[in-house]
Amino acid sequence: MPYHAPVDDFRFILEHVIGFSDVAATGRHAEMTPDVTDAILNEAGRMCDEILAPLNRAGDLEPARLENGVVRTSPGYSEGYRAIAEGGWVGMAAGEAHGGMGLPMALVTCVNEMMGGACLALQLNPLMTQAEIEALESHAGPDLQALYLPKLISGEWCGTMNLTEPQAGSDVGALRSKAEPNGDGTYRITGQKIYITWADNDFSDNVVHMVLARLPDAAEGTKGISLFLVPKFIPDADGRPGEANSLRVVSLEHKLGIHGSPTAVMEYDGATGWLVGEAHGGMAAMFTMMNTARLGVGSQAVGVAEAATQAALAYAQERRQGKVGGTGTIIEHADVRAMLARMRAETFAARAITLACAKAIDLGREGDAAAKARAALLTPIAKAFGTETGINVADLGIQVHGGMGFIEETGAAQFLRDARITAIYEGTNGIQAMDLVGRKMMDGGEAAFSLIDEVQTGAEAARDTLPDLAEPVWQAAEAMREATERLVGRPPAERFAGAMPYLRGFARLLGAHYHLRAAQAGEGRRRRLASFYIERMLPEQAAHLAALRAGPDCVMALDAEDLVA
Amino acid sequence: MPYHAPVDDFRFILEHVIGFSDVAATGRHAEMTPDVTDAILNEAGRMCDEILAPLNRAGDLEPARLENGVVRTSPGYSEGYRAIAEGGWVGMAAGEAHGGMGLPMALVTCVNEMMGGACLALQLNPLMTQAEIEALESHAGPDLQALYLPKLISGEWCGTMNLTEPQAGSDVGALRSKAEPNGDGTYRITGQKIYITWADNDFSDNVVHMVLARLPDAAEGTKGISLFLVPKFIPDADGRPGEANSLRVVSLEHKLGIHGSPTAVMEYDGATGWLVGEAHGGMAAMFTMMNTARLGVGSQAVGVAEAATQAALAYAQERRQGKVGGTGTIIEHADVRAMLARMRAETFAARAITLACAKAIDLGREGDAAAKARAALLTPIAKAFGTETGINVADLGIQVHGGMGFIEETGAAQFLRDARITAIYEGTNGIQAMDLVGRKMMDGGEAAFSLIDEVQTGAEAARDTLPDLAEPVWQAAEAMREATERLVGRPPAERFAGAMPYLRGFARLLGAHYHLRAAQAGEGRRRRLASFYIERMLPEQAAHLAALRAGPDCVMALDAEDLVA
Repeated sequence: MPYHAPVDDFRFILEHVIGFSDVAATGRHAEMTPDVTDAILNEAGRMCDEILAPLNRAGDLEPARLENGVVRTSPGYSEGYRAIAEGGWVGMAAGEAHGGMGLPMALVTCVNEMMGGACLALQLNPLMTQAEIEALESHAGPDLQALYLPKLISGEWCGTMNLTEPQAGSDVGALRSKAEPNGDGTYRITGQKIYITWADNDFSDNVVHMVLARLPDAAEGTKGISLFLVPKFIPDADGRPGEANSLRVVSLEHKLGIHGSPTAVMEYDGATGWLVGEAHGGMAAMFTMMNTARLGVGSQAVGVAEAATQAALAYAQERRQGKVGGTGTIIEHADVRAMLARMRAETFAARAITLACAKAIDLGREGDAAAKARAALLTPIAKAFGTETGINVADLGIQVHGGMGFIEETGAAQFLRDARITAIYEGTNGIQAMDLVGRKMMDGGEAAFSLIDEVQTGAEAARDTLPDLAEPVWQAAEAMREATERLVGRPPAERFAGAMPYLRGFARLLGAHYHLRAAQAGEGRRRRLASFYIERMLPEQAAHLAALRAGPDCVMALDAEDLVA
Repeated sequence: MPYHAPVDDFRFILEHVIGFSDVAATGRHAEMTPDVTDAILNEAGRMCDEILAPLNRAGDLEPARLENGVVRTSPGYSEGYRAIAEGGWVGMAAGEAHGGMGLPMALVTCVNEMMGGACLALQLNPLMTQAEIEALESHAGPDLQALYLPKLISGEWCGTMNLTEPQAGSDVGALRSKAEPNGDGTYRITGQKIYITWADNDFSDNVVHMVLARLPDAAEGTKGISLFLVPKFIPDADGRPGEANSLRVVSLEHKLGIHGSPTAVMEYDGATGWLVGEAHGGMAAMFTMMNTARLGVGSQAVGVAEAATQAALAYAQERRQGKVGGTGTIIEHADVRAMLARMRAETFAARAITLACAKAIDLGREGDAAAKARAALLTPIAKAFGTETGINVADLGIQVHGGMGFIEETGAAQFLRDARITAIYEGTNGIQAMDLVGRKMMDGGEAAFSLIDEVQTGAEAARDTLPDLAEPVWQAAEAMREATERLVGRPPAERFAGAMPYLRGFARLLGAHYHLRAAQAGEGRRRRLASFYIERMLPEQAAHLAALRAGPDCVMALDAEDLVA
């Protein structure tokens, strides 16, 4: 399945849609001139096209497997991983102090999207390490940083996140793994963790697990959780992987997709660990990891949407079927054309949202409080909408392929199988929506209203040149304002029944906003795509907001017995 | 995965929602008293629960395979098939003249749904045979009927449909298989066919292929296609399977789902065949097969929706996660509750539509022209909406399961993988939508307007008792009337860009109509479910109709280059 990294689209969105120049204007990223960003995107894109994409099908056909306690990875993954590490892409977001590239999140997000589009199962590996690097940069002491960061950033060692336990999934506070002090500053970690992505591999010299566990005196719930670093091999005096730690991969899951990514049950049996951050402060460190990972998951799913769109478009232009004019291929059928247009329009919208979120993170790191709030607001939207886009677009891609879409050789079905997990991990999309209407509205809706203002200002500016597109966007923003006012006035628990419709309605609006900007700045095709989105897809926002207005009663009045046939 | 056939829901819908008593009032089905229909549904339901459902996972794990040219079926399938055949369910729709049960389509549709919900991959086998039986009853001469119908109806022999060729999928008229007269009334059939469902098995004494091919003097396109009966073993003088015919299974496909159903490439190499119906009259016979099969596919997918809903509901009531009140399980989370409510509400809507379609077929067979037109109108809606429901509900089922939904052991993912084909085969859903706004509107919209009238009459009757539910349904019907008027005035080619939105909008309306009837007739839970559907889901109709109003230009203006990133 050929894949072409959408470098031109990234460039266009960065420059004309989300205003990346604001990031380059900050002191930290002054070197990020268009020439430099082009070079970075092109280099990452070439690796994705030439090295990673060809591995995607092999990983599906020959999953990672557990042999005598050792994980054997899919064919070619070792070489693919080496290319990622040697390109510096594992540590691209990391500070230069320990060898990172120090790229802004806007560029990191482009590169993560490309790698995810080329080979999702393998890209998960560096995505986990990126999250771990950020957690260590933010929370670990200087000794741990000096020992681990250079190895993780270079990609010699890989990282994992160990949160979930059988009884503690979305409810992290229910976890039971224990950490007992050894008296020498280290801890004995004991417990079982599940759903551990890339828990082991056969291509890195060490695997460094970040494990949530409870100290002996810990409170119940989330306030009693601490974060520990637990390496597979304990580094020796020279910092080289030494003695094997008391931990093991118990089993790998048989999954719907991402077969190339080993998902493990891990057993820690008095394994030696080091505390990261404060005792009982694990949740803060975890949120550092998860927020980055959430945007990363949103953008990896956008990558799958891109790959699925490319594959469907190529198929539709070569498959001849039925009496149609023009090219004589099925792209001339209106329904096929509409599916492809939806795939492209949705992919663009989701990509712009992830990049707008990344930009807000970049500006927030420079101390811009409004940008920080914007990033907090956009993260759950980018994650949930990006992942729904990955799934929905991949599903449309199967349909464009007709009967061939159901045959695994085509690869269309793999995109759906792979993308499906993204709506679940790093916090299910339902959790994202609760975060959006709960925590992210503790500001009284300020961040939401500010973004809605921006959308309306943009629509007003477009009224002269694109009145037919600007007006519905303005109106949709007004509807979003009313919906936000409605939610802000209610207690959080009452908001939850409308959380998902609210998130989807907001994403539809933002998609229209960025399409409108693209239509103003770009060639005719950008305007045509924006027309399609605004005329055919934006009306879905009204349906989401109607569901929101229906209120919690029509949901919660239905109890389990009512739901039996 | 336990499955409980939704016999109570069938009973309720038949009696209170679609008015099955109209069918029982006809001469042909006078014996279909409530006692008799109950007995039939209960007996079929018991077989589905106890015999078929336990086979579903085994078929997924151990797909049918080709060994030295012979298809070996999944573990237990042979016994499962025998139970279906011995119960009389293969021939349940067939006339009593050749040993069929002569059941009305409304009951056949219930039984097909149950069997599909219990084990989709196996149920496809009798579904194909049912279609073949109907084609032979309608088009074959008495000798062929006498020889083949008793064996097919009893299930001793199985049937298949051979339409598709590599270059001829949705465009059946492009097929190239040849039929040359042998001079003795038989024909030599030569050609390759693909996507042949249940092309072979190891549990029936014979397999009787229905093959579309061209006679030597045939016109191009669909007007030159004839239908042939081509048995795997040519019956001897006593009607027993004799000499092997010149045909073979070349290979089986590696598919996303329905692994237990062998999908074959078939090679006919001068195989002996018999003409069914008129020379060059194959399309008429094919439409007989396909119309029945289309409703059958819609209802089998509703069966998957039912099974997925049951599984998700069971999981949500046992999984503890997060601090919630009530039962302490995840069903207390509003988002989980909303997903389950949507699954149930959608499954009910799709089921009612398939049964309304089946009822119209039953009345149409008694010579009621309006019912015939109603059946013609509802068939593409029942197929496309039923299958989208199967897919969408299965997808929600995965999400309700959280991380467990991505693990294949749970079975939640299998429902999605299995259901995914239903939107593609027997005419993709895009084809269904073109049929709806094309052929099915050649009456100037009469059948559509008549159904819309019925919806509005129903809403008016509900205004006194359920004003909050009746009004939006009436308004949605009015919107559908306007949309229909808009389409009827345009040339067919211009209708196609809006065909899918029109179909989905109509289905949303019909779902509301049947929910409203259920709310009037049933217990409180029926009203609560109707409220959920009408308040939270019916507003989606407006989004579909807005997409329709956007017109073809915003779709067709986008050409292939516009759709590149």
